[in-house]
Amino acid sequence: MRLPSELDRLLREARGRVYTRTERVPLAGLDGWHEDPATGSIRHRSGGFFSVEGVGVRRPGHPVPHWEQPIINQPEIGLLGLLVKDFGGVPHCLVQLKAEPGNRNGIQLSPTVQATASNYRRVHGGSPVPYLEYFAGASPVSPASPRRRVVADVRQSEQGAWFLRKRNRNMVVEVTEEVEVREGFLWLTLTELHGLLAVEDLVNMDTRSVLACLPSGPAVAAGPAATAGPDDFAASVVRSGRGDPPALHPTEAVLSWITDARVRTELEVRPRRLDELARWRYDEEGVSHDSGRFFSVIGVRVEASGREVNGWSQPMLAPHGTGIVAFLVTRVAGVLHVLAQVRAEPGYADVAELAPTVQCVPENYDVLPPAARPAFLDDVLGADPADVRFDTVLSEEGGRFYHARTRHLVVETPHLPEPPDFRWLTLRQFSDLLRHSHYVSMEARSLLACLRSLAVAAREPDGVPS
Amino acid sequence: MRLPSELDRLLREARGRVYTRTERVPLAGLDGWHEDPATGSIRHRSGGFFSVEGVGVRRPGHPVPHWEQPIINQPEIGLLGLLVKDFGGVPHCLVQLKAEPGNRNGIQLSPTVQATASNYRRVHGGSPVPYLEYFAGASPVSPASPRRRVVADVRQSEQGAWFLRKRNRNMVVEVTEEVEVREGFLWLTLTELHGLLAVEDLVNMDTRSVLACLPSGPAVAAGPAATAGPDDFAASVVRSGRGDPPALHPTEAVLSWITDARVRTELEVRPRRLDELARWRYDEEGVSHDSGRFFSVIGVRVEASGREVNGWSQPMLAPHGTGIVAFLVTRVAGVLHVLAQVRAEPGYADVAELAPTVQCVPENYDVLPPAARPAFLDDVLGADPADVRFDTVLSEEGGRFYHARTRHLVVETPHLPEPPDFRWLTLRQFSDLLRHSHYVSMEARSLLACLRSLAVAAREPDGVPS
Repeated sequence: MRLPSELDRLLREARGRVYTRTERVPLAGLDGWHEDPATGSIRHRSGGFFSVEGVGVRRPGHPVPHWEQPIINQPEIGLLGLLVKDFGGVPHCLVQLKAEPGNRNGIQLSPTVQATASNYRRVHGGSPVPYLEYFAGASPVSPASPRRRVVADVRQSEQGAWFLRKRNRNMVVEVTEEVEVREGFLWLTLTELHGLLAVEDLVNMDTRSVLACLPSGPAVAAGPAATAGPDDFAASVVRSGRGDPPALHPTEAVLSWITDARVRTELEVRPRRLDELARWRYDEEGVSHDSGRFFSVIGVRVEASGREVNGWSQPMLAPHGTGIVAFLVTRVAGVLHVLAQVRAEPGYADVAELAPTVQCVPENYDVLPPAARPAFLDDVLGADPADVRFDTVLSEEGGRFYHARTRHLVVETPHLPEPPDFRWLTLRQFSDLLRHSHYVSMEARSLLACLRSLAVAAREPDGVPS
Repeated sequence: MRLPSELDRLLREARGRVYTRTERVPLAGLDGWHEDPATGSIRHRSGGFFSVEGVGVRRPGHPVPHWEQPIINQPEIGLLGLLVKDFGGVPHCLVQLKAEPGNRNGIQLSPTVQATASNYRRVHGGSPVPYLEYFAGASPVSPASPRRRVVADVRQSEQGAWFLRKRNRNMVVEVTEEVEVREGFLWLTLTELHGLLAVEDLVNMDTRSVLACLPSGPAVAAGPAATAGPDDFAASVVRSGRGDPPALHPTEAVLSWITDARVRTELEVRPRRLDELARWRYDEEGVSHDSGRFFSVIGVRVEASGREVNGWSQPMLAPHGTGIVAFLVTRVAGVLHVLAQVRAEPGYADVAELAPTVQCVPENYDVLPPAARPAFLDDVLGADPADVRFDTVLSEEGGRFYHARTRHLVVETPHLPEPPDFRWLTLRQFSDLLRHSHYVSMEARSLLACLRSLAVAAREPDGVPS
């Protein structure tokens, strides 16, 4: 896909100016970090940022009823903020070209603000976070600021297999006032930004998260596709986002299905010593599973330019293998339905969330019981290429995850029967749930942003304001 | 208020047959309970039911920035289920005449099912819970059972000052099939049941909770009041429930206000030994605050008839003083608005919930700093009687709380300015939030049920089916 020319120019220019160089170092010697003797956990000396801890997980009745693992504990609620502004009737959003140490390609597109509470409270003593005042002022929803309107403001989880109860505040604020465009930032139309999801490793995870929290309204759902016939795929996406009837399941039934899963699921997570986790080895290289699968916790030293701080060390989680997240989708009377899974993860604040139809790292199942193999994985991997509507590898968050990449797939299928933990939902049902916290997982939000991009794929990109 | 004659007859009859006799006994000698040496907590030998534990609470910036207290930890999610059925076009619900050891008057009206998980899994070896099959079957939302429709199904918190992360599943199921009416149960119309909220200590807390989770739809909001003029109070309640414009605040702004409070509030709850809580005395009589205020934890021996089990012992929480919960309400262009408070409590699963305008036990403020005195308390206590729309003392849950009573007030005021933690909301905005977990507190749900009853207060009671 061709990049908008302004973005292309800025990316080339920024890649010289903004970078991080990352060098692997032993976990034990990380500057500013220490091992807590009581728990074996790895903590920052400030008490801020995050820690790497051990947990034991018990899931009676699950194919893997017990396991232990390292997990990242980041109790602070960070901020992912996207500024939106209308230029000549076209909604634009302000994105940042941001380098993160875990990005395999350096710079990706981040939201206007992407900051942990430690960042914006300046625990590390760095420079202030640009544009924070639009989101994190004393009164972000002040009726006295009619030039700033909160479009979305909701706490959402992140990867429940890697983070213990991590939540970020996802905010979209629409402004009518003049906004200074600082170095490393640019306005893209919402259509352009969605279109860029088809570029490998470009739109970062936080941007995908906050894009998914946008109400499915005119911004994305408009356009000629809306009036196309029932056999037009893009039109079926638009209708699904608009909430055109019929949804297969009334919303009360969907809410009851989620409540039932959250009440029924037995999932117990208890702290364990990080240096005594069953089947994990903790040595010079970091913490790794004895099978070589899943992920390792590693140490890195980072040299950075164009960020708040010029250099630091930190632990990172380095997954082994490229992940797969996939939505099976089907058209019911011309309205796209998405096969959502209700999925429990040890790190979720509220037991279970709506997840992609398939979410896994296929290689991991070589060392797990056959019953653990995900439903529908073969439907996704064996799909006729003509049915694959979206297929792009995108990166996970480069501040915590090292070269973590996930192949995002949308595959059209006939209307399949639903196993108990699966339901066909419309995009409007997802949007309605996304106004509230902890219903839709990070992986599902990422795929929803990709899926919505298919509503506008056939359109010409709108112009960028000069 | 006159009781429906069938209810009056059943209550008289049941008071002879169903009862609990409660005798205070020392906490230390409770049959079936023991003190955990590691924590001082009081636990049941089965590991089920609940425990009484100690916590320390830190709230920087709050008038009481630190305190310690006993709290009830009941991690199991219980079920409050209400069966609803249409008889001749009139919606009815099946209530139970149920005696609880903490009820000062013995029998109150409970939902069709009111059961802890220990109850319905029969940890105590008692008889099966009647009507459970309508709610807690393997597949409560089976599309194969069109004769049973889930109307509401949501986990809600209970008193966050007394319970640590307690949640109950509130379910309303509408049936079209024949339902056997067992001894101690009867069908009341929804209008009758709402009307009975004006009777002291009759409609129990669990019934009020689940009634509040009913969608504000035709069931309660219908009737002649809907067509009355803008100066009719009942009509303003109906319009507010129906979601007639204008709501003072758009829903996005309300959601953002709640998100902001939950992100901003610093509230830390840590375990403490129950027998070493600062300012609490643990002796033969139980656990009590040295000021004599707040509440005590006491032990009781219960002799029961007409329940699953004939006798048992348990700890209970006995509050000192009658509580007050009050909504200030005002009419904006003929639509009732309710002044909701976003309120943090140590026991909430998600930091803060929407609470009544005023919620307190006034006597407690004799021993607290003056800054802790609740906003609007004087507006409520000093209200002109002509502005008081509802004023009834109702009981808190009699299974955990001993003679716990709360005066429920609805007071009409002019349109007052909103302090930061308060917003004027419509009943429809509350109903929309009540489809989701943990937005609306127990105390607010209880008052919402009372407030809705004012929409139908002017109507004649519907008939009861024979």
